[in-house]
Amino acid sequence: MRILVTGSKGVVGAKLVDELKKRNHSVFGVDIQHHPGEIGYIQRMSNEEWTYSRCDISEYRQIERILNEAGPFDFVYNCAAEFGRWNGEDYFEQMWRSNLIGLKNLIRLQEKLGFRMVHFSSSEIYGDYEDVMVEDIMDKVEIKQLNDYAISKWANEMQIRNSNAMFETETVVVRLFNTYGPGEYYHPYRSVNCKFCYHALFNLPITVFRDHFRSSTYVDDCVVTVANICENFINNRTYNIGSSEFHDIETLADLIWDYTKADKNLIEYKDSEILTTKIKKVDNALAVNELNHKETVSLEEGVKNTIEWMRSYYRL
Amino acid sequence: MRILVTGSKGVVGAKLVDELKKRNHSVFGVDIQHHPGEIGYIQRMSNEEWTYSRCDISEYRQIERILNEAGPFDFVYNCAAEFGRWNGEDYFEQMWRSNLIGLKNLIRLQEKLGFRMVHFSSSEIYGDYEDVMVEDIMDKVEIKQLNDYAISKWANEMQIRNSNAMFETETVVVRLFNTYGPGEYYHPYRSVNCKFCYHALFNLPITVFRDHFRSSTYVDDCVVTVANICENFINNRTYNIGSSEFHDIETLADLIWDYTKADKNLIEYKDSEILTTKIKKVDNALAVNELNHKETVSLEEGVKNTIEWMRSYYRL
Repeated sequence: MRILVTGSKGVVGAKLVDELKKRNHSVFGVDIQHHPGEIGYIQRMSNEEWTYSRCDISEYRQIERILNEAGPFDFVYNCAAEFGRWNGEDYFEQMWRSNLIGLKNLIRLQEKLGFRMVHFSSSEIYGDYEDVMVEDIMDKVEIKQLNDYAISKWANEMQIRNSNAMFETETVVVRLFNTYGPGEYYHPYRSVNCKFCYHALFNLPITVFRDHFRSSTYVDDCVVTVANICENFINNRTYNIGSSEFHDIETLADLIWDYTKADKNLIEYKDSEILTTKIKKVDNALAVNELNHKETVSLEEGVKNTIEWMRSYYRL
Repeated sequence: MRILVTGSKGVVGAKLVDELKKRNHSVFGVDIQHHPGEIGYIQRMSNEEWTYSRCDISEYRQIERILNEAGPFDFVYNCAAEFGRWNGEDYFEQMWRSNLIGLKNLIRLQEKLGFRMVHFSSSEIYGDYEDVMVEDIMDKVEIKQLNDYAISKWANEMQIRNSNAMFETETVVVRLFNTYGPGEYYHPYRSVNCKFCYHALFNLPITVFRDHFRSSTYVDDCVVTVANICENFINNRTYNIGSSEFHDIETLADLIWDYTKADKNLIEYKDSEILTTKIKKVDNALAVNELNHKETVSLEEGVKNTIEWMRSYYRL
C-alpha cells in the first residue's frame, strides 16, 4: 500500500513509519520542519528516492502538493497535530491552526481524492468524565472538554463525522492514552512519563498530583495496533488505544525515582490539578478484539527502557 | 460605561453600537476592514474623537493595542466572528482563526485586564437536538454539532467555561436564533430571511426545504435585549435570544413572495437539507425574565421592513 504519514518525525509518527516499512508498505512522511530526505521542489538536491518532505498541513497548498506529487496514496495516517494541554494553552494559535484547519484541509482533499484515513485523537476528549472510558460514551453522556487542546481534538472528531455523513469519506479515529517510551526527547510540554524520567535523570524538581490516575501505554504496542488498521479497516470506527495497566501518578514517580535513585526531595506532592481529567481508565476491548491490540511491555519495563534510552540519547 | 464592540460593522454589531450610544455609554467599535472614523496609528489623520479602528481579533497585537490605546474598557461585546455554516465550510481557515484564536486572544486579555464580556454564540450549537431548545440542555444531553461553524461556536463556549473555572473571568453567552432585519445587505452566506427577500426582489431562484422550522428574531428586538446585559450582568449566564414566532421555511417564503409579488415558479421545494438543524424552537424564558426580552415586531412586519429597506438600499 502507498501510505502517507503526517507528523512523521513525531514520537508516534516516526515509529509508525518504521513499522509500516517493516510490513513492506511504501511510506512517505511529512512534518513541519526540514530534515534530510527532502529533495527540494524548485531546487532539486537529490536523485535518491523521495521519502520525506517538509509540510505544514494547515497550509492547503503544501499538503495538496504532497498528495499530488508524492501520491496517489491509498492511506493517510494523520499524526500531525499540536500536542498537549499546556502547549494548547500557551501556543493556542498554532494549535487551532494545525489541528482544525490542518485536518479540514486533509478532509477536503480526502473528499476529492478518496484515500482512507486514520486520525489521531486523544483520551483528553473524555474531559470531565470519571468512569471507565468506552468509545461510545460520547454518544450517551454530555461531556465537557477541559482545555483548548481537548476541545480541538473533539472538534476534529466531529469534523470527521460530518464529512462522513455528507461526503462518505472513510476515516478511523484512534484515541491515544498516555503514550510514552523511548524516542520521546524532552521538553516541558511532553507526556508526564517523559517529564518525570528526564527530571529524575537531571535532578530537577517535579510536582506529583495525588489521586490522578492514568493508563500509560508503551509506544511500541500503540504503534503495532495502529499499523494494523490499514490492513483491517472498518470505516467509521473509533478505537481507544490504551493499556490496561492503570496506575496513579505517585506510583509512576516512585518507579522512576527508585530506578534512577534520584533524590526523593525533588518530589512535591499536591492534591489536584485543574483543567485535566483526574482519572483516565481506558476500555480497550474494541482494539483488542478488532485490531489485535497487545500489551507486551509492562509499565515497569517501559519506564526502564525509557530511562535507558534517555541516558544514551543525552549521553549521561 | 466604556464599552468595546468587536464586529461593530456587522448586522448586529452596528445596531448594538447605536443602541448603546443612545443609552449614553461611551462606545468604541472595531471590525476587520478600514472605515471612516479611523484616525490611523502611525499616520494620524484626524483630531476627531476616535470611535473606530480596524482590528482583526485573531491578531493578538491588534486587539491588545485597541484595549490598551482605546481602553480601558469596562465591557466588551464580542460580535466579531465568521458567520454561517456554508461560510464556515467554504472559508474554514478564516472561520477557525477568527472564532477560536480570536476569542482566545480576548480571553487571555480578559484574564489580565478584568473586563466583563458578552460573547455571541449561535442556535447552531444545538446541532442535532430536535426538541425545544433550553439553555441548559447542553449539560444534560449529548449533542453533536453538524458543521464546522457550529463546532466552532460550541468550542468557544467551552473556552469561556474553562477560563471562568481557571481564572474567574466574567462572561455572558448569548445564543442568537435566526436574527434578521433591515441592515443585512445581501451575499449568499447571509440568513435565510435576507436571502429570500433579496432573491424575491431580484427574481432569483430559491430552494425551500420542507419541514425545516425556525425561530426568526427581529434584529432590533435582539439588540435591545443584548444591550440590557451590561446593565444587568449575571456572571456565567447563557441566554437564548430568540423569538417565540415559530414558523416553517415555507411560510417565510410565502410571506415574502406574497408581499413582493415575485414569481412563484422561482421557488423549488426539497425535502431535507443535510448538516443543519431541522427544527429550531427556542425557549427564551430566561431572556424574558432576566433581560426583559420583548418581541415588538411580528414576522410579517419584520419581513416587510426588511424588503422595504432592501428596496431603498438597492435603489429599486
